[in-house]
Amino acid sequence: MKAPEKTKVVLDETKIPTHWYNIVPDFPEPPPPHLHPGTREPLAPEDMTAIFPMGLIAQEASTERWIEIPEPVREIYRLWRPSPMIRAWRLEQELGTPARIYYKYEGASPVGSHKTNSAVAQAYFNKIEGKKRLTTETGAGQWGSALAFACDVFDMDCDIWQVRSSYEGKPYRHVLMETFGATVVASPSELTEAGKALRERFPDTTGSLGMAISEAIEAAVKDPDASYSLGSVLNHVLLHQTVIGQEALLQLAEFGEQSADVVYGCAGGGSNLGGLAFPFMRENLEGRTKTRIVACEPKAAPSLTEGEYTYDFGDTAQMTPLLKMYTLGADFVPDPVHAGGLRYHGMAPLLSHAYHLGLMDAIAIKQREAFAAGLLFARCEGIVPASESNHAIAGALREAKQAKDDGTSPVIVIGVSGSGQLDLPAYAEFLAGEMPDS
Amino acid sequence: MKAPEKTKVVLDETKIPTHWYNIVPDFPEPPPPHLHPGTREPLAPEDMTAIFPMGLIAQEASTERWIEIPEPVREIYRLWRPSPMIRAWRLEQELGTPARIYYKYEGASPVGSHKTNSAVAQAYFNKIEGKKRLTTETGAGQWGSALAFACDVFDMDCDIWQVRSSYEGKPYRHVLMETFGATVVASPSELTEAGKALRERFPDTTGSLGMAISEAIEAAVKDPDASYSLGSVLNHVLLHQTVIGQEALLQLAEFGEQSADVVYGCAGGGSNLGGLAFPFMRENLEGRTKTRIVACEPKAAPSLTEGEYTYDFGDTAQMTPLLKMYTLGADFVPDPVHAGGLRYHGMAPLLSHAYHLGLMDAIAIKQREAFAAGLLFARCEGIVPASESNHAIAGALREAKQAKDDGTSPVIVIGVSGSGQLDLPAYAEFLAGEMPDS
Repeated sequence: MKAPEKTKVVLDETKIPTHWYNIVPDFPEPPPPHLHPGTREPLAPEDMTAIFPMGLIAQEASTERWIEIPEPVREIYRLWRPSPMIRAWRLEQELGTPARIYYKYEGASPVGSHKTNSAVAQAYFNKIEGKKRLTTETGAGQWGSALAFACDVFDMDCDIWQVRSSYEGKPYRHVLMETFGATVVASPSELTEAGKALRERFPDTTGSLGMAISEAIEAAVKDPDASYSLGSVLNHVLLHQTVIGQEALLQLAEFGEQSADVVYGCAGGGSNLGGLAFPFMRENLEGRTKTRIVACEPKAAPSLTEGEYTYDFGDTAQMTPLLKMYTLGADFVPDPVHAGGLRYHGMAPLLSHAYHLGLMDAIAIKQREAFAAGLLFARCEGIVPASESNHAIAGALREAKQAKDDGTSPVIVIGVSGSGQLDLPAYAEFLAGEMPDS
Repeated sequence: MKAPEKTKVVLDETKIPTHWYNIVPDFPEPPPPHLHPGTREPLAPEDMTAIFPMGLIAQEASTERWIEIPEPVREIYRLWRPSPMIRAWRLEQELGTPARIYYKYEGASPVGSHKTNSAVAQAYFNKIEGKKRLTTETGAGQWGSALAFACDVFDMDCDIWQVRSSYEGKPYRHVLMETFGATVVASPSELTEAGKALRERFPDTTGSLGMAISEAIEAAVKDPDASYSLGSVLNHVLLHQTVIGQEALLQLAEFGEQSADVVYGCAGGGSNLGGLAFPFMRENLEGRTKTRIVACEPKAAPSLTEGEYTYDFGDTAQMTPLLKMYTLGADFVPDPVHAGGLRYHGMAPLLSHAYHLGLMDAIAIKQREAFAAGLLFARCEGIVPASESNHAIAGALREAKQAKDDGTSPVIVIGVSGSGQLDLPAYAEFLAGEMPDS
């Protein structure tokens, strides 16, 4: 097979979306509201002002379909957006599949992942309301480095609690955050009451996103000049990520494809999948397409495939509002798999709602299958994918192999959420045959 | 200052150059030939067949201006080329300079540097002549990982000797090479006679590119199925890199610039600078432009600014042909600065010739100035540059500050040869104030 005529579509910067897409008004029924943990009544905006600025609170509850992206945010997006969509023709060739495989690659952003799409937006909305400092949690470190970059752009302080297993296992990541001027500590830490309590209760804990969230929220609540920023799960975060799916639809059209038959995205908290999938889901809801959307979650944190759809806390210390979501329980601590960004007990309420309504499928993938897929992808495409992204690639490989058996040629879109250049220790472990198959 | 209307130019894949540009016929006088180390007569093609395939030997001595890029090489180039050219408008803003600063970014290649441009070409020409294995040296690891990727593409074995200081100080790099299927050892090693002799003579050596070259050549000479590959210095390597400068000229035109006033590139062996600069130098030689070209070398290995223009060996063990170049002596061991890719005792003969003819300037930069420049660049542009690239950025910052003082607005082009995501330990050292100012 020779290379196809067009192997990638890199849109001009004028094609960066002007609006974020809010799926809420397009759902056949509205998503359940977040609840106040004390009263169990729907959350009022004022319940969230201790940790979020009004601009983001409004987005969290918005029922507007299109929300304009402020010009200063679009200006920063121009540093790396539009992100490329690439035909994985060498991977197709290697698999001998008649499927046409495209991937939307977010790894060329400042910190190597999609997370900057929301980080820049969140920093901006905090900045214009006078906040001087943001606190956050991070797993693998992709969200933390994104927020570090965004705070640098808008000249704000940034304090990050990083899940201990990632802080220690992937030291380059916190250097990257520090390069952008942030302060990083391993979580659970001694700097917060929540952290101290967790360390007492679980002295050997490797940490979790839920624990780190508790610490970052506590720090923000204590400081009137600070807000908390969350890198996934919440509605406004998924909203900011919809630039991904909007660009992907344009790019598929430039490739000459009518639509995608199936979209694979990795899903931890859900921001990359939501951002990629919602614009495709809208096409489905409006009857223009029948694209299957598949959430690829890690077997170590299988919230959609094995969790319960119920109201639960977003964090371990039970400080967040109650969110209606597929969850394994707020005190669930996943095995320390390499895809730190997917080690979360729940799934974004908007994605949970979509799944509950049957608008989306889900599969759970063990990490060895994920890394085998990532390694094959790297060797064919020359891009080493992030540990998280490997789950989406693994799902797509199953589909591409099935297509070969069936003699069909589906159009497959993979969300490659980030670069794995800072996940190389995980690849080393996989290559050495020493990776646990969690 | 608002963002300019156009902040980046990412050309369509149809704009990948169809030919490499060979500057040799355009020089006002021909470059001195390589010499046989025994006879000191000009090297004959058959003198090099023990380590190189005929296709590359022919390029090494070619006087053809344009050499066609084989289609299988262009197909692989399409995975990441054309590379983007980006207006560093946030950096301009930060400096308050009226200069217009553009950078040509090679860091989005499979291994994060320009090195793949030549690696893929070299693997291809070896493959079609039946070679099954390539050996090479690598400093920081950028060339090694590039050749590892290229060998993977063309299904060849790849054995890499990595300079010990980089092997130990930047462990992620050899994992990247291993991810692409290569075998990597620290040099000097016990696997070659040259390595054993060096370890005996310098038991505490941190290694050097010259030493590693000796080992890789020895291994190739001993195996009839193997060739040696060099990542810089030689004419054919610089030739392959000229895709960079050709694209850059097209991109500057799309930005609406008549030409560049000055081009800054980092220079160790010289392949990135040569590849970027030669197409600009051709414009000068044909009288269309007066672009100043500035080689930015590390103060720790200042071959152009402090070396002698003479015939010297390319390696420590004196196994290579004699090359007419600016050199610090084949047994010069640079301080273990972080820019491992620049720790070379000589400068590419073609660049040395250009410098000797007055077609190019050179400056030497200490690593703290380089990293201060790289950090500022990262915080403005969202791209953490490779240690090597920081030298070019530092040179450009001097120019941009001068322009501010002078009230001039030159067009500055910087060659950002790679990404620094795997150089983060060096940034950590710089941030901690612990970097020696070598």
